Amino acid sequence: MTATTETPAPAGASYEPTDRTVPSRSRERARYDRETVHAILDQGYVCHLGFVRDGAPVVLPTLYGRIGETLYLHGSTGSRPLLAAGRTDPGLPVCVTVTHVDGLVLARSAFHHSLNYRSVVVHGTARQVTDEDERRRALDALVDQVVPGRSADSRPASAKELAATAVIRLDLAEVSAKVRTGGPNDDPEDLDLPYWSGVVPVAPAYGAPVPAADLAPGIAAPAYLAEL
Amino acid sequence: MTATTETPAPAGASYEPTDRTVPSRSRERARYDRETVHAILDQGYVCHLGFVRDGAPVVLPTLYGRIGETLYLHGSTGSRPLLAAGRTDPGLPVCVTVTHVDGLVLARSAFHHSLNYRSVVVHGTARQVTDEDERRRALDALVDQVVPGRSADSRPASAKELAATAVIRLDLAEVSAKVRTGGPNDDPEDLDLPYWSGVVPVAPAYGAPVPAADLAPGIAAPAYLAEL
Repeated sequence: MTATTETPAPAGASYEPTDRTVPSRSRERARYDRETVHAILDQGYVCHLGFVRDGAPVVLPTLYGRIGETLYLHGSTGSRPLLAAGRTDPGLPVCVTVTHVDGLVLARSAFHHSLNYRSVVVHGTARQVTDEDERRRALDALVDQVVPGRSADSRPASAKELAATAVIRLDLAEVSAKVRTGGPNDDPEDLDLPYWSGVVPVAPAYGAPVPAADLAPGIAAPAYLAEL
Repeated sequence: MTATTETPAPAGASYEPTDRTVPSRSRERARYDRETVHAILDQGYVCHLGFVRDGAPVVLPTLYGRIGETLYLHGSTGSRPLLAAGRTDPGLPVCVTVTHVDGLVLARSAFHHSLNYRSVVVHGTARQVTDEDERRRALDALVDQVVPGRSADSRPASAKELAATAVIRLDLAEVSAKVRTGGPNDDPEDLDLPYWSGVVPVAPAYGAPVPAADLAPGIAAPAYLAEL
């Protein structure tokens, strides 16, 4: 885990499995190679951030951005997990999970119904980012994670906005992916049952951009929106 | 919180806010009415289940089914959280979160970029379901949550399959929703900046069903798939 935020991971390198990144079931679906993990992370922009508050788990959806081997999350300086990441030395233990659903898997048997999906689970310690340059790069990455190219086509954050925003970072070190693909795995004795069986593909679909009601005339939707 | 799994919630009833269901920011987006919460839950089938293991948070994607005021989750009897829910008296403290992304909100300023989304966060204690009738109903609900009507059109679980499946339940008691809708909230002084601003709608799209390679001839895709 020597990669920095500026250095691409060596090709073919994998994350080292640990006790908590080896799943207790469906181990054949686990992946540890960086290429798979990065591809799953890069296709999304919403993660589910888990942390512990007063001994109980909390899971909140939030945006993320990836730069190299670091995930960045942000929020108001008043938000609870961000405060905790700053207050707690040496940081806030978190689990960040990103999930894409690719298909509904309908088997003949109710039991073998499943989903095709790709997910990444990152365990680690989130720490507040205080370096101003890193904070700016992180906030750009968060915007570009949602719409690639957008950060360069918007007004950069002002000093006041930067001061109101907390940024936390989580190193990609204890990481696993889980991937299910393919059709249903029915038992051989069920194959002739009179139930349809197969996969219904699922993917996010982006609609035509809706301009803001107060958009100044003559500003067309940018070309990068067509890439979504 | 007197509703049972068999009784619809009284119309207009709301969940009682608690310390941990009142967000620390964007409170105007919080919702506590059952109608909103149920609608968000019923539109999805994947949740992110958070629990604490060895003092650290764990967040895993998994399927759920709702029956009345109860969420059901399932897994192999060997899976860690399911084991913990059975072992721990009086159950496993969990947080279950369901999130739908409805739109990418592009503001003139990087700072005001956002998402339109609807999410539900449920705090509580998950308990293993041991009653066989409730377990069967729960597993049907899990299948029907993904594809309404499907449980009646598949082979029911055998005794062996039931024995291999752990089911946990989580009462909808400490619950909140969070909803953002509408366009970007740019600052007035940014309205004339030369950046496109608006919303890109997002929604899951379902493709044409792909029959299993070994599907017996003459079985057409069922009509309920067209309702997805």
